[in-house]
Amino acid sequence: MRTLKLTLAYDGADFHGWQVQPDRCTIQGTLAEALERITGEHVLPQGSGRTDAGVHALGQVASLSLASTIPAGGLQTALNDTLPGAIRVLAVDEAPPEFHARHSARAKTYRFRIYRGDVCPPFLARYVYHHPYPLDEAAMMQSVGQVVGEHDFSSFAAVDPERARRLLDEEDETSNVRTIFYSALGRSTEMTEAPATNFGQERAYELIYTVRGSGFLHHMVRNLLGLFLLVGKGTVKPEEITRIIAARRRSANPGATAPASGLYLVDVEY
Amino acid sequence: MRTLKLTLAYDGADFHGWQVQPDRCTIQGTLAEALERITGEHVLPQGSGRTDAGVHALGQVASLSLASTIPAGGLQTALNDTLPGAIRVLAVDEAPPEFHARHSARAKTYRFRIYRGDVCPPFLARYVYHHPYPLDEAAMMQSVGQVVGEHDFSSFAAVDPERARRLLDEEDETSNVRTIFYSALGRSTEMTEAPATNFGQERAYELIYTVRGSGFLHHMVRNLLGLFLLVGKGTVKPEEITRIIAARRRSANPGATAPASGLYLVDVEY
Repeated sequence: MRTLKLTLAYDGADFHGWQVQPDRCTIQGTLAEALERITGEHVLPQGSGRTDAGVHALGQVASLSLASTIPAGGLQTALNDTLPGAIRVLAVDEAPPEFHARHSARAKTYRFRIYRGDVCPPFLARYVYHHPYPLDEAAMMQSVGQVVGEHDFSSFAAVDPERARRLLDEEDETSNVRTIFYSALGRSTEMTEAPATNFGQERAYELIYTVRGSGFLHHMVRNLLGLFLLVGKGTVKPEEITRIIAARRRSANPGATAPASGLYLVDVEY
Repeated sequence: MRTLKLTLAYDGADFHGWQVQPDRCTIQGTLAEALERITGEHVLPQGSGRTDAGVHALGQVASLSLASTIPAGGLQTALNDTLPGAIRVLAVDEAPPEFHARHSARAKTYRFRIYRGDVCPPFLARYVYHHPYPLDEAAMMQSVGQVVGEHDFSSFAAVDPERARRLLDEEDETSNVRTIFYSALGRSTEMTEAPATNFGQERAYELIYTVRGSGFLHHMVRNLLGLFLLVGKGTVKPEEITRIIAARRRSANPGATAPASGLYLVDVEY
């Protein structure tokens, strides 16, 4: 048996998330079917973490053990020929036997896209969170840095603690302590992909939130965003963030879970 | 009754084309439902032409008569609140009573996007035609200009002539004569919309075909593309185009109908 590392990009809009489920179209299940069709082996690739329904990936990583001797490059081509266009295999690499996409991960980066403009182009509707209402962006930019560091992020975990524990995407499932290395919010004007124009909305742009950390609790990025959006609306003051982290319970965080459509798993570091 | 002009953009990937059909989700049907929900009036907006299933629009135009006195701006907001994100109303304008989106149109522009790169980003799969195989682009660029002018375009009409006649999107349904004002093919490197990156494929780009004409037969743009792609493959020589036009029958054109996913109705002129 050899161990392989797959690097994947996917449009999550039409999938019920990463994790295989009976009678549901999932990324993991679709990958397993393609692998079985190509190699005859029934293997379930292990992802670096479980992305939710509607969440996208630019560089998800999965590991698997395979008996087949098909060369890595040939497997990549065969997978891309077999998979739907919404899932692309960007690389297939031989990995040491101990490599595990989830256990071996040292850092992950997520991105969240907020579309700012009256009318969201239909070609972006699946790929951004459209928020056309006023936001105090300066206050938001001031607040996002406050989550950097090692903290117990229970205030940003999924509401149902049982479910959260079950869905934790880290090895140490008993702790909610994570380290955020980088957390930044900025405007992007690079949204001129040919037909997804801004339709004459001169002031349309995107707010791009980028966060890199040792790992993330279930819903953690979307719950961070929910709080930052309340800062933008003026409901929460930037200086309250520290207190909300320290409370270590989801009920101390008044923010809602931001929509999945804007979220991207950008890459995983090993 | 007042006459209104709607300007629309849509992602056609999940719709069975423009024209209303029983038990099928279409652009025209979805618009009619939204209009009825807002005004209580049952009206079927008339499009400038019928886009096929999977074809997109950046500036489709539709006309309709309405008794409601709701201001144009309010109607635009209400429609965008009611319609799915895949259809956006870019403008609602009052129009003279004789205005008809199809009969009054003087010119239309279409665009076709061909993605050139080994792996098509999953976020573009619905929006381009992925063609990773070799193409003699210089020969293609040399050939596209040869269709400019007034011609009988029967060689580029839909295969089934009955169906084609029924689906002609022009007033004069007995003639296949149309005028192409502009026909050009070029490379685009403006494909850096934030997460739809080229995934490190340095040489990835798009071939963009743009055509502006007095009107187009059913499937005409996709059949022109099918022929240009054969020129790119070396099967057809650029100098054969004139002969293929002159033959005035679909069977004289060896090209296939190019996929709908790459096609955009860019705008309609009045």
